[in-house]
Amino acid sequence: MDRAVTLQGHWQVLRRWLLLILLMCAAPVATEAQHAGLFLSKSEAQAIQAARGHYPLMDASIAQAESTLEAAMAKPMEVPNPGEAGGYEHERHKQNYREMRLAGLLFSITGQDKYAAFVRDMLNAYADLYPTLGPHPLAHHQKPGKLFHQTLNEEVWLVHTSIAYDCVYEWLSEDERARFEANIFRPMADWFHIRNQTEFDRIHNHGTWAVAAVGMIAYVMGDLSLVEKALHGSQLDGNGGFLAQLDLLFSPDGYYMEGPYYIRYALMPFFYFAEAIHRMQPEVGIYDYRDQILRKAYYAAVETAFPNGIFPPINDASLTMDVAAPEVVLANALTYERYGADDDLLGVTRFQGRVILSGAGLTLARNYAAHGHEPSMNWSSVEFRDGHDGLRGGLGILRTGEGENQSLLLMKYGVHGGGHGHFDKLHFIFYDQGRQVIRDYGFGRWINIEPKFGGRYLPENDSYAMQTIAHNTVVVDQRTQNGFDEDAAEATWGERHFFDAANASAQIMSARADTYYEGVGMQRTMLLMEDDRLQYPVVVDLYRLSSAELHQYDYPLHYSGQNIVSNLTFNTRTDHLQPLGEAHGYQHIWYTASATSDSTIRFTWLDGHRYYSVITAPHPESQILLGRTGAHDPNFNLKSDPVLMIRRQASDHLFASVIQPHGYFNEAQERSDQARPGITDIRVVGHSSEASVVEVFGREGFFWRIMVANGPAEEGAVHSVALGEQVYSWTGTHHVDIGTH
Amino acid sequence: MDRAVTLQGHWQVLRRWLLLILLMCAAPVATEAQHAGLFLSKSEAQAIQAARGHYPLMDASIAQAESTLEAAMAKPMEVPNPGEAGGYEHERHKQNYREMRLAGLLFSITGQDKYAAFVRDMLNAYADLYPTLGPHPLAHHQKPGKLFHQTLNEEVWLVHTSIAYDCVYEWLSEDERARFEANIFRPMADWFHIRNQTEFDRIHNHGTWAVAAVGMIAYVMGDLSLVEKALHGSQLDGNGGFLAQLDLLFSPDGYYMEGPYYIRYALMPFFYFAEAIHRMQPEVGIYDYRDQILRKAYYAAVETAFPNGIFPPINDASLTMDVAAPEVVLANALTYERYGADDDLLGVTRFQGRVILSGAGLTLARNYAAHGHEPSMNWSSVEFRDGHDGLRGGLGILRTGEGENQSLLLMKYGVHGGGHGHFDKLHFIFYDQGRQVIRDYGFGRWINIEPKFGGRYLPENDSYAMQTIAHNTVVVDQRTQNGFDEDAAEATWGERHFFDAANASAQIMSARADTYYEGVGMQRTMLLMEDDRLQYPVVVDLYRLSSAELHQYDYPLHYSGQNIVSNLTFNTRTDHLQPLGEAHGYQHIWYTASATSDSTIRFTWLDGHRYYSVITAPHPESQILLGRTGAHDPNFNLKSDPVLMIRRQASDHLFASVIQPHGYFNEAQERSDQARPGITDIRVVGHSSEASVVEVFGREGFFWRIMVANGPAEEGAVHSVALGEQVYSWTGTHHVDIGTH
Repeated sequence: MDRAVTLQGHWQVLRRWLLLILLMCAAPVATEAQHAGLFLSKSEAQAIQAARGHYPLMDASIAQAESTLEAAMAKPMEVPNPGEAGGYEHERHKQNYREMRLAGLLFSITGQDKYAAFVRDMLNAYADLYPTLGPHPLAHHQKPGKLFHQTLNEEVWLVHTSIAYDCVYEWLSEDERARFEANIFRPMADWFHIRNQTEFDRIHNHGTWAVAAVGMIAYVMGDLSLVEKALHGSQLDGNGGFLAQLDLLFSPDGYYMEGPYYIRYALMPFFYFAEAIHRMQPEVGIYDYRDQILRKAYYAAVETAFPNGIFPPINDASLTMDVAAPEVVLANALTYERYGADDDLLGVTRFQGRVILSGAGLTLARNYAAHGHEPSMNWSSVEFRDGHDGLRGGLGILRTGEGENQSLLLMKYGVHGGGHGHFDKLHFIFYDQGRQVIRDYGFGRWINIEPKFGGRYLPENDSYAMQTIAHNTVVVDQRTQNGFDEDAAEATWGERHFFDAANASAQIMSARADTYYEGVGMQRTMLLMEDDRLQYPVVVDLYRLSSAELHQYDYPLHYSGQNIVSNLTFNTRTDHLQPLGEAHGYQHIWYTASATSDSTIRFTWLDGHRYYSVITAPHPESQILLGRTGAHDPNFNLKSDPVLMIRRQASDHLFASVIQPHGYFNEAQERSDQARPGITDIRVVGHSSEASVVEVFGREGFFWRIMVANGPAEEGAVHSVALGEQVYSWTGTHHVDIGTH
Repeated sequence: MDRAVTLQGHWQVLRRWLLLILLMCAAPVATEAQHAGLFLSKSEAQAIQAARGHYPLMDASIAQAESTLEAAMAKPMEVPNPGEAGGYEHERHKQNYREMRLAGLLFSITGQDKYAAFVRDMLNAYADLYPTLGPHPLAHHQKPGKLFHQTLNEEVWLVHTSIAYDCVYEWLSEDERARFEANIFRPMADWFHIRNQTEFDRIHNHGTWAVAAVGMIAYVMGDLSLVEKALHGSQLDGNGGFLAQLDLLFSPDGYYMEGPYYIRYALMPFFYFAEAIHRMQPEVGIYDYRDQILRKAYYAAVETAFPNGIFPPINDASLTMDVAAPEVVLANALTYERYGADDDLLGVTRFQGRVILSGAGLTLARNYAAHGHEPSMNWSSVEFRDGHDGLRGGLGILRTGEGENQSLLLMKYGVHGGGHGHFDKLHFIFYDQGRQVIRDYGFGRWINIEPKFGGRYLPENDSYAMQTIAHNTVVVDQRTQNGFDEDAAEATWGERHFFDAANASAQIMSARADTYYEGVGMQRTMLLMEDDRLQYPVVVDLYRLSSAELHQYDYPLHYSGQNIVSNLTFNTRTDHLQPLGEAHGYQHIWYTASATSDSTIRFTWLDGHRYYSVITAPHPESQILLGRTGAHDPNFNLKSDPVLMIRRQASDHLFASVIQPHGYFNEAQERSDQARPGITDIRVVGHSSEASVVEVFGREGFFWRIMVANGPAEEGAVHSVALGEQVYSWTGTHHVDIGTH
């Protein structure tokens, strides 16, 4: 494996050098071509204007842009002195770049001078302001910009403003252009690639914004040597720059190591800059680069989305970010245009309800209008390999059902994912009934809410949201994975065991994580089961821990809703609450109730219109703990959410659980059906390093037997395991008997 | 006042006797007419059949009924032995009566024998079962039925089944009819009016169901002497029976003393039985009875509804019951048919999306289809007098805005409302942004969820939901109003002071409650303000307490969402929680944080897409307490909700507060505007038994001065109050200056 990595690394370096040499030999880009459209060419603009009234999505998108500009023009232009993060001035500067970009595009499309004048006037105001500014004083831990508290926002400003500037370039006088470049664009680009060289060369979404900003303004200014730095890094050595980011930020499957929320954000600089390169230097072949990595990156992003369009909130992430975000609107159209018309992407467009103002947007709007029926987003089960080499674990997603009624089971077993990574290896999310049912907390952040620490990440993001206990994965000895050491977590990754979605009745994925707790091996095998005897798909979870020593294993499930019934007798804390622990996130959970059990555990809650039950196999002296987030939260930064935890002291242990959605509740209609689960028991027949065998029992003879190979698992291999007096045999990685008892 | 009550009482008794005599002289109803339709006549049924394919609402309603019956007929018929409340058998018997009624109506409409046979076969099964049953053993505190744990459900069964029986009456053989009447209908009616005579004669929604059930089956059986008992009480003395209920359960404005949730439930027996009387004994003039009290009752019910169609959950009530409930679907059509076509009722129909299968349903479906644009429900501000004499306080509802974007402020100052009444005089609800923002907890009940005590009312309904602290009204000395004594609460009521919705900028209502805490007078004046300088309507709340003694006054606000910012420095309980108190509901609230303040209190939270701030006038040593429900809740019956409370030790005191919605938050779009309120201060200029004067201040010179007469307040009266060195003068009950400072 190491050797493969090294070879692949060498080849990537070589490829980048070859490309660099090729580019250096290429003829300089003609000045005329430069302003024929960084994002929107004259002929595309004319085609959009000619198509008005024909395609509802494009008409709506133009109307929205026009109304934004109409509102903007009705008020005095404001280019204020910089302010605090999330505050009025901060938001004003953000609005300004959005308005400039739209004004530039509307000028190209409609030819109306008022839009060009709007861009010119605003750039004039920035040309007055920018030279007066030093580094922003309120940067806290971020790299300061001048207009904004962090460079990141300023780079975003420049990406958008480059497009505006490109659109009006020829309309401006030579003096105006000279003034804008001298007062704003040159010094800003220098600030990014010289003063913030480390950030510029960083393999990270901040780096992507930096190189996109510098590269795009360089194209408009006609400075190809600056473009080179954006492509190959400030030292032109290929250790930084756009191509290195395309090499290293994505796995060969296009999966982005920071996760869906951040690829959503990074799609914008990736696609804006790629599109600019494609138009200004087609010889780079950017859309074909690394075996069409941008196509894979886009698909890998949207294929993680929940059936309601929301991105799974793994790592630092919002709970509501979805495929209607402007970055996805951009990437969807460009992917559709540059990689071929795919009806699945029309399904994404349905969530978006708008298109970008470009030739690609026009294509999409035209084909959407021509599509016979309402397109839907129907992704299949998929596994993404993680790591730039594809050898560092992955992300498994099992899906069943149609359209927005799909159920989805996601397991995370890839790399840590950088500074936004959570310590949550083997974490899972179960999505059902249009919501996260076993859920991820998301980030500890009230994004852009100024009184909440300027809308930035809160201390509770580190002290709770990132910790292992905030996730649905086992915590060993009440400590976070890798001791909450980011470097240690970055140095390791999960391991794929197998992923098999071929059998719709029993889709399965299995992975290991042996380097997260010293001396403790962990393997999780999860199934998404469909059985006609059950109303809804069901999750089976086999979480196996092995160690030579005795440890405390906490198996948490983060759910939502109201506790309904259990076969346990809880000791509920009625007059006095204390936190569950003192550190590693436990200090943030109020300990609300506990029970002990030697037999099967059944616990049912109500979430929305369905009941959910977890049924866990019996073990002597299992403890069951209930909690609710909110302890040690002096500034009310946390949400108040329930959690259930099963605790065992053991060395080798298998947590074997079923999570069954069942019944129906409608308060308004005063209807309740099947508030108790149909599955009643799960029994561990045996488990070892070789295999796990469990049996699931339910009412009316309901029975499953699940046999999983824990060791090497080739497809055709025959397994035969003696457990007690019986021998269990199967071929391949696993076998599921669906029958009766 | 007492004299007026007595006179009105006499007149009602007299009126009932006159009616009784009239009825006794009337000719007996012809047998032929009896089965011409208790609910649906032959000609109406034919008209519905002829109209098929013409009116979408009727088509959809018939299709729904047909599909229900198709599913029912595809399975073996089940008439099980009785089971526990909320359990399978319970639900099965409920489904059976619904299916029988629909089958009867479909038989009338389509003429297809299969529907009549379905009713006959099921009645046969009941005729086998019913004679074998004794009183249900699991009645707990309710009156037992035989099929169900409480008579109530059995009465509902009979109401529905009467309609089914009426529809197939002529299709059945004489023997079948005799058997059904002997084995089911006679003994069941006897069970209701003889064995459960107290309930039958009770002035209460249970009594309404009882008389409707007995009266309707009596009509079908042709037993007019039994109908008499249903109309005039088991003793025919007018102290019980349907007419007495129409006299006593509603105020002259049609307001129902139990509140909207229970009138919603009672609409069904009221309207089913009224419609039967209208058809079978038109000479009673039931729809004109008591100056058209049924019309007023229906309007008073739907006019309380929130703009999203949900009924305000005052008293024991679900948080989600809405105007789409089947009872409202029934009453809406019959009100429309019997009292005249009112477009406002089409607005109600829009929420319902279906109609009843009757002539009235056909009329509604036809007119709905003919209505040019989508009808909307746009109720105006309204005050309902409470008590059967209209002299016992009331319910005030202020509304502003259009359609579903209305804001609504509701204050409750009427009678206790029987066994479902809450101890919440002067309680208010603020509805904004399509939700309760300052909210009522609703009932302590997981309705029909079998593992939750059979879906019945839970102990926490008494110990929390009914208590004063669970509401948005002041708690004195940490005790519930009237010492949680229902009899004491029933013996008193709030008093209307004034209600004035004429000025759209400053709608206002004021009421007193002086008999709820010994020696403490309470007056609450609430305004719903509209001011172009503010984004959304704003609430002003002046809650005045007066006493000769020192008391502890707790002013609670029950909100939802996330705490965002405050000018207070909170001592947050970070590692240890205890309940706020030991009794009167306080024992159910975890005490999460506190602060003290001598100056203006500002506290902002986020709920959905808006921020909300409460700004309260300064007083020395004000305490601010934050809490969250969930303490002393061993079985997890409570919801986990936040509450804010301002506490003062005082004798005379005015809590003067503004509740301002402001700004916008959209997590998915990462947008946040105006997270801090525009209103910054409220100051009490002075308050006395004569008047209260307060001033409200905001950014950019924003200013209101509000002057309210606390004593006698005639419309033209001139008030002049000296406070400090200034004299404040106005004419009428109140005056609001809207200006700048």
